[in-house]
Amino acid sequence: MISKSTIKLIKSLALKKYRVKEKLFLVEGDKNVIEVLKSSYKTEKLFATKTFISKNENSCNKAISTFEVEHFEIKKTSLLQNPQNALAICSLPKKQIFPKKLTDNLSVYLDDIQDPGNLGTIIRICDWFNIEYLFCSPNTVDLWNPKVIQASMGSFCRMQIFESKFEQITDLAKLSRVPIFGAFLEGKNIYTETLPKKAILVMGNEGNGIHRELESIIDRKIKIPEFSDEGNSAESLNVSVATAVICSEFKRQNF
Amino acid sequence: MISKSTIKLIKSLALKKYRVKEKLFLVEGDKNVIEVLKSSYKTEKLFATKTFISKNENSCNKAISTFEVEHFEIKKTSLLQNPQNALAICSLPKKQIFPKKLTDNLSVYLDDIQDPGNLGTIIRICDWFNIEYLFCSPNTVDLWNPKVIQASMGSFCRMQIFESKFEQITDLAKLSRVPIFGAFLEGKNIYTETLPKKAILVMGNEGNGIHRELESIIDRKIKIPEFSDEGNSAESLNVSVATAVICSEFKRQNF
Repeated sequence: MISKSTIKLIKSLALKKYRVKEKLFLVEGDKNVIEVLKSSYKTEKLFATKTFISKNENSCNKAISTFEVEHFEIKKTSLLQNPQNALAICSLPKKQIFPKKLTDNLSVYLDDIQDPGNLGTIIRICDWFNIEYLFCSPNTVDLWNPKVIQASMGSFCRMQIFESKFEQITDLAKLSRVPIFGAFLEGKNIYTETLPKKAILVMGNEGNGIHRELESIIDRKIKIPEFSDEGNSAESLNVSVATAVICSEFKRQNF
Repeated sequence: MISKSTIKLIKSLALKKYRVKEKLFLVEGDKNVIEVLKSSYKTEKLFATKTFISKNENSCNKAISTFEVEHFEIKKTSLLQNPQNALAICSLPKKQIFPKKLTDNLSVYLDDIQDPGNLGTIIRICDWFNIEYLFCSPNTVDLWNPKVIQASMGSFCRMQIFESKFEQITDLAKLSRVPIFGAFLEGKNIYTETLPKKAILVMGNEGNGIHRELESIIDRKIKIPEFSDEGNSAESLNVSVATAVICSEFKRQNF
């Protein structure tokens, strides 16, 4: 049985103020829960079905307390439309130490990404492309939002993600002698530009793109070219899709 | 006022059986509604706020009937979590004539994509990359699902999309002398393979990839390479993200 007070606690973790107050975050979905159990995050409470527990015994042992529950209980508690077989309450980690220098790799800075699905997908993309650091502006959706965690498919456990102001990034870029690239509709074609191995890529907000006041600090503006001659194709790509295409091109050129 | 029976009708259009019965589909979200009004689709009924109508007068005139409604009414009727200012009921189009031959361009075949958000995003990606045709296997989520329409951001109005069995595609490929590429985890690196201008790209189901029985008919297996040395990065990319990266590489090589 999941107690009423626990259900209330879990539901409250949808909101940042309760996550901060309780110092907890919620992980849902089988794949995500397995990944968090394998990681260095501390799983305070794991709620899972009998089948899930027997299938993932070693991983489940890593949780501080494990509760075998029926699927209907997970369903009642879950914030997902299609709940799976496991749900974990984890401790929010201590603040990581901000990097002093960048190594020979690509990093990404997100300027006010609002949609949790987009942030989660971008985390998964950065993980796939072995991006060094993911920096999020203070107004980007909270990393510990359950929908972000959900969409990241466990990749949040492996990526190094920092909340940071743009000034911190420009300082880091200067110190590390790394150029800052930004995705702009009026940028230069990524297919014909030479993209270095070591760079910071800035991706802008879903509706408004990169803040105009950051524009002058960005060293090089790039874009994914359009392909329709008549200019009657899609006006833009979703920001997570665009991030994937640009990261892919950076990595391809330095493969 | 949106009448009770209309609200009931709109809600019913979430399900395929009612879309087929009524020969109607639902378009939500300002951008989508503007695009559908501009297109050759027939908008039977348009429900929109005063501001939306005055801002888009010319487009709104194209609807057979337009109803000025309050935002709270759209909210009450909408299938979206965050309803916008317009909602259109459109006629399902007549079945398009299946192409006899492919031209000098890339086409995409989706093998049982299940998530409406993924299909909508892929439609938007295909539109951006000026893909000729998008073919969907009979078990792919229905194109007229409101969530697909929503995620396509109007691109469904511009793309040529066909439901088709894989045999139809192989026939079309043979006749047009076009190779069929498929995305497989064990495929060859897209960055080092030569990708032709004219091809059909097959993308598989979210959980299971491409059906094994199609494998022998696919001419060339390709993949987006992994970047982590230790093999501890994301296991896969979301199918819409992977479609974007692969389409981008096809287009880049033939830019």
